[in-house]
This record gives sequence, C-alpha cells and structure tokens, in this order.
Amino acid sequence: MTMLEIIEKKKLGRELSREELIFLAQAAARKTAPDYQLAALLMAIRLNGMTDRETTDLTLAMRDSGDTADLSAIPGLKIDKHSTGGVGDTTTLILAPLAAACGVTVAKMSGRGLGHTGGTLDKLESIPGMRISLTEEELIRQVREIGLAVVGQTARLAPADKTLYALRDVTSTVDSLPLIVSSILSKKLAAGTDAIVLDVKTGSGALMRQLEDSIALAYAMVRVGHLAGKPVVALVTGMEQPLGTHIGNALEVREAIDVLAGRTEGDLLTVSLKLGGCMMLLAGLVSSPEEREARMREAIANGAGLRKLKEMIAAQGGNPAVCDDTGLLPQAPFVRTALCGQEGTIQAMDTAALGRAAQAMGAGRLSLEDQLDYSVGYILKVRIGDRVTPDTPLCELHAKTEADAARAEAAIRAAIRIGKEPCARARNFYAVITEDGIQRIGENA
Amino acid sequence: MTMLEIIEKKKLGRELSREELIFLAQAAARKTAPDYQLAALLMAIRLNGMTDRETTDLTLAMRDSGDTADLSAIPGLKIDKHSTGGVGDTTTLILAPLAAACGVTVAKMSGRGLGHTGGTLDKLESIPGMRISLTEEELIRQVREIGLAVVGQTARLAPADKTLYALRDVTSTVDSLPLIVSSILSKKLAAGTDAIVLDVKTGSGALMRQLEDSIALAYAMVRVGHLAGKPVVALVTGMEQPLGTHIGNALEVREAIDVLAGRTEGDLLTVSLKLGGCMMLLAGLVSSPEEREARMREAIANGAGLRKLKEMIAAQGGNPAVCDDTGLLPQAPFVRTALCGQEGTIQAMDTAALGRAAQAMGAGRLSLEDQLDYSVGYILKVRIGDRVTPDTPLCELHAKTEADAARAEAAIRAAIRIGKEPCARARNFYAVITEDGIQRIGENA
Repeated sequence: MTMLEIIEKKKLGRELSREELIFLAQAAARKTAPDYQLAALLMAIRLNGMTDRETTDLTLAMRDSGDTADLSAIPGLKIDKHSTGGVGDTTTLILAPLAAACGVTVAKMSGRGLGHTGGTLDKLESIPGMRISLTEEELIRQVREIGLAVVGQTARLAPADKTLYALRDVTSTVDSLPLIVSSILSKKLAAGTDAIVLDVKTGSGALMRQLEDSIALAYAMVRVGHLAGKPVVALVTGMEQPLGTHIGNALEVREAIDVLAGRTEGDLLTVSLKLGGCMMLLAGLVSSPEEREARMREAIANGAGLRKLKEMIAAQGGNPAVCDDTGLLPQAPFVRTALCGQEGTIQAMDTAALGRAAQAMGAGRLSLEDQLDYSVGYILKVRIGDRVTPDTPLCELHAKTEADAARAEAAIRAAIRIGKEPCARARNFYAVITEDGIQRIGENA
Repeated sequence: MTMLEIIEKKKLGRELSREELIFLAQAAARKTAPDYQLAALLMAIRLNGMTDRETTDLTLAMRDSGDTADLSAIPGLKIDKHSTGGVGDTTTLILAPLAAACGVTVAKMSGRGLGHTGGTLDKLESIPGMRISLTEEELIRQVREIGLAVVGQTARLAPADKTLYALRDVTSTVDSLPLIVSSILSKKLAAGTDAIVLDVKTGSGALMRQLEDSIALAYAMVRVGHLAGKPVVALVTGMEQPLGTHIGNALEVREAIDVLAGRTEGDLLTVSLKLGGCMMLLAGLVSSPEEREARMREAIANGAGLRKLKEMIAAQGGNPAVCDDTGLLPQAPFVRTALCGQEGTIQAMDTAALGRAAQAMGAGRLSLEDQLDYSVGYILKVRIGDRVTPDTPLCELHAKTEADAARAEAAIRAAIRIGKEPCARARNFYAVITEDGIQRIGENA
C-alpha cells in the first residue's frame, strides 16, 4: 500500500478501505508521508467526499493514532458536550454544573478560543488559581468525587488530527464534512467519552453559516457516532447574535454565575437547559424533556448547580468565592456605556464581527503566542427584534484603555443594523438530530 | 493575492484569472509557494478542470516562467512535432529529414524516454559522436544552413513545468487534461516554434489508452494552441502494437535509416508520411494531402531524405556513415531469434509491457541515473492480424547476455496473445483534429 495509490483511488471517487484509512492516519501522526501527498489527498476528499463508513473508519484510525484516555474507573456513562463554536456562548459553564447536579457524570474536554469564537478553557483560566491541565489520575479522582470536571485535552490525543488540521488550514480543505466530523469525533472518542451532545451553531457567528450546511454536519456527526458505537445527539442552534449578553472571558464567567444563581434568564439559559437535557437523556436519567428541564431549573432554584460549580473550581485549584462575589474576577480599568444613538428596531448582527471586536480588545488571540486579557470585553444591551431609542444603552464596554473602548464601540456599531421596519426575534433552535433522523423545529418552538 | 485564495477559488469550481495563473506559474518556477499548497491546487484542477481560457493563460504563464528561445533569425515558419509517447515510435527520425528535404524548416526539441516509451534524444545519442545539446546560436546557424535540427531542450525553458510535473507525478495528478496541455505547449512555445503537429497515441501502449480520452486531449491542444496564437494540427494514431518493428535505441535508428533508404515499408512509414504531410501543410507548402505524400515518397526514392539525415548527423558531430552502413551503430553481443511456438492469429498486444521488456534489457531507464545500453532491444516479427505457425519467427532479440534475452523473450511472449479466431489488422489513424474540429477517420481509411 502506498500513499500514491490511496490518492489515486480517492481522486477517482472510489471508497477507501479501512486499511487505507489506518495507513493515512498513521502517516499523518508519524509524519511518514510528505505534506504534499497529504494535501492532495485532503483536496480529493474535500471534492469527492467520503461515505459514512469511510468517515467512521478514519475517525477510529485517528482516535487510535495516539494515546486514548481510559475513564472506565469512573462508574456510569461519561457524557461530553461539544459546540462548533460561537460568540457569548457560555453554555458549558452553566449546563455542566446543572447536569452534574442532576446526576450526570460530566468529564468534559474543552478547547481554547479559535478565531472570533471564545473557548471554555480561556474562560475558566480567568478564575484566579484555576488549573485546566489535569493528569488522567487527577481527572478520574475528581469526577469520581464530585461528578464533574472541565479540562484541556492532553497533547497526545489524536496526533493525526493535529497534522491534518494544520494542513487543512493552509490548503482550503477545512470545509470538508467528513474531515470536520473525523476531526471532532476522533478527539472526543480518544478522550474516553461514552456519549456526546453536539451543539452545531448556524448563522452569522457560526463556522457554518447556512442552515442546511449546519444540519448536514450535525446529521453526519450523529450517523458516524452511531457507527463508531458512541451515541451522539445534535442540536442545531442559532448564532445570528451572541448567545449570551456578555462577551469576554471573565465577563462570560460572571454571566454563567448570574444564570446559575437565578439572577438572570434569557437565550443563554434556554439553550443551556436544552443541551443539558440532552445530556440527561443520553445518561438515561429522566424520560420527558419537560421533566429534565424542571429538574435543572430546580437545581438553579435550590442552589445545587452553583454549589457544583464551586466544588469544581475548588477541586481544580481556583477560588470558589468568585461564585458568591463576581467582583473577585479580573476587572477592566475602563468601563463605560455606549448608547444606540438612533431610533428603530435591531434588524441583524454580524456576529463574527462582534466576536472579532472582543478579540481585538484582548479577549481572544490574534496569533498563537498572544497573552489574553481576561478582564476585557463588553456586555451587549440589545437583541435582534428590540425596539430602541437614541438613549437606549447599546453596550457596556470593559476595556484596557479608552482608545480600545472607542475602537470596540465603532466595531460593535458597524456590526449591528438598526432599521425602521419591525423585526422578529432571532430563533434559538432549528433542529434536533438523533439516530432516528432530523427533526426540524418550527418557528415558534 | 495569496496561494490559499487561489486554491479556495478552484476548489469551489470558479475560473481563475490570468493574474492568478501567472502567480501560480511564478510560484512554481521560483518555489515561493510550499509544495503542499501546489499539490492541493493541482488536485483541485484535476477534479474541477479548467476552461480553455484558463489553460491558455496557464500555458503562457508557464512559457514565460523561464527563458524563451528566439528563433526569429531563422527565416520562415519553424514547425515542430510532438508525440505523447509510444513504443517503436521512430517517426521523428523519418519525417523530420523528409519534411526538411521537402522545404519545411524543422527546429525540433525532443525528449528522453519516459517509462515504457522511447525518446528521440536517446535514439540519436546511439549514433557515435552525436551531440544533442546545442546553444541557441548553434541551433540557429544549423537550421539556417541545412533546414533541420533535432536537439534537447535547455534546462531553463519553462521551469514552472519542471516543478509542477515533478509534483503531479507523486500526487496522482498527471492525468489532468489542462495540466497535460499546458505542460506540453508551454515548453513548445518557449522553444520558439511557430506551429506544431501533434501525434496523440491511443491504445495499449499509449499514456491515454481510451480513444475518447486521446481525442479530448488532441482537441484541447488544438484549441489552446489556437488561443495562444500557434496553430496546432493533431492526429490520433494507433498504439495497439509497436508502430515500427524495431524496439531499442540503435535498432530504431537502423529502422529509420532503412525506411529513408527505401528498403522497408509499413505502418511506421505510413504514419510518418501523414505526420510529415501535416508539417508541410502548416508550413504552407503544398495543398493536397496526396501531393504532400508524393513529394515525401519522392524524397525517399531520390535519396534526398537520407541525405538530409546525414547532413544533420554530421552537423551535430555524429558519424554520418551510419546512414550507409548501419553496422556502424552499436551492436549487441547476443542476437537470436525466438519462434511463435503455436499456430493461430495474433490477437492483441500489451504494448506498454512490450516497451517495458526493452526497458528491462537496458534500452530504457528504470531510474533517472540509469545508463542506457544503446545496442539492446528486439525486432518484432509479427503484427496484429498475422496468421502464424509454430515455426514463424516471433522476435529477434538483441541482448547483453543470454539471461537478458531469455527474460525479454518471456516478457514478450506474455504480452502477445495468439488465438484461434481470425483478427483484423490494427488501425493506424483514428482522427485528425484542426481548428475546424474533429474529423474521425473510418475503419478503412
């Protein structure tokens, strides 16, 4: 078997065998094939596609290209959740403690911010003292003790993905469905998870902006997860505007604590409850969606969710007092409010641009070496469909300098369209996808 | 403009601009783009294709990526001929002297053997003393004086093609029509030719085995040549069996001399006359095909063709006496005849395997560094459609050792199918393609 033969076969649109996909994953992990051959093969896969069987075999081969975590010492099903990335998307910090408080075993591997999207690990690190690098032993002990851990993935998981992802980024082959699926799933499977709730974003702040592309990705993830023996339930959720109102690392932690403390409601809570409900479903805990949601709302009302977050922060070396006093989180020196300045209705947002505005303030990395400023970001005061007057607050800026605040304000203004016409609120849910198929969710669901 | 943007565009099936194709050719020639990006782009071109306009712009950009020969000091139109490569295909050594003897100005750049196919340069170098590396000044002087030169191309012509060809070879993107066309034409245009006769082989010994693929390539070459301002006339000719009877470098020179001396006829002469006639047509010399063929047959009868070959050999430092005594060409130590060994009709030949049999004897290179043995090869004594008996000679082997002869004999036997059923002779001509379109040639033409 040679890489050239594999390229030839995929070029002709033929199905690759399990052995050929193992050969590919091993070559990528060990760097035994030249980059130009991997690049040609990636483009052939991008243009000629792969069957679910091929994608599954590639996923498993990538999973097996490095270390795999063994979480069998933790009793019960370990449920993970993955989002394709959004802005103001702090669901993990809400649903993980809530689900754990309701009895789900949560051993979650999270990632860092990528481009205009935020990352859970960066948010967690804004909590003073918080550690996100645990050894497998520490992880197992913590989850056995408190039923919850959110950590970074070790470097040795799925090294084939590392090579292939870096090449995809520079050869315009990121947008290949089978390559996206195998990249996400191989890491999740290597991390030892038993079932996955997938949150595929759609809209102006999502990696896949078109609804049909988002649904296709979600459905492929569900099918391939099934073939790989790990149940996946996927929700397609809206990213036409930031999900939460807070954008920026410490600000998003603050919002999550506010939600868990029952001080605030809104789209972020709504989506977190739906995703958390899917985790409970996969864990086999409660049967009806209404009951699952009620259980989590109860964990908010009785403080069990916030207590779980505190336990996790303490277990990972952080200061749990931030849960009682968010003033202990990093604070930006310049805080001021900007007003809408005109009358009308919020029509639309360029959510990726809103993410980049926070990134430019120091909340996200522009290059791999960048140090983040956890304190900066902004609180968006309007949502699509809101009627505003010139005096309505647009956003509350938290910046390092007044100059940064001014730049961010201009970027936020440019990203939000205010018009005369009335405008419907943005939708949170578009589809739920299970092994039974795609269930589209109506406008008013 | 970045290479990533160009890859993205072609991945989406869009048409690349002239500027983008120049960027590509320059990046390939100067090696300013990483191989993996060129490889991804080549695969995207292979799978999504290019329009004639794109292929033309790429051809011109590749032509301009290095030196270009200026042959304007030679009066009249300089006509080149190119073959996609075959076995026992010695047409250049016959038609170039004949066309020159009939008044065509022939300044031909030839290539070396590639894979199972022979190369004119290797054949010429089997003539003692023959030089195939001429400076541009020497080339111009020689063509002005005798109207004929067959030489190697300088290393600095179309360097973009060198990079791209090497990458195509290892990324399974050799079989891309626009990439084949731009590769061939860019070098021909850089060599300063005014018009080209193209011989596209089809059948078991051709690079494109399927007739429709061969016709598509020939037609694309004609269209792109036209757009690039250089007339191309293409013939699609048969390669179901070796064209001549002699396979091996010195043996093929001997057969060419035999043909020019009027001692032998057959398919090799038939095809050479048709191709030579196309050269005369492009040079604007004689109008009717019959008259052109008659003029070349006259040049054989009166010895003008052979005299022209002698002049060329002498001008390029070779020993012209080989034309009077082919015994002066390198002779193999072991010469013996193998018999058919069974009764029947020759049904088919695996012509590529026949080429590899000669290659294995030392007539072709297995790796770039291999030294050729000019003397070795074999003379095939049968053609498709021949009735044979066990005592009919199959081939005359010219080998370095008896062991080599035995191996070649076995390979030749395995490549020739003898069966009971009667079988029609193989066809020489399938189509002639000009700017006016494709004219298919009937079975009995």
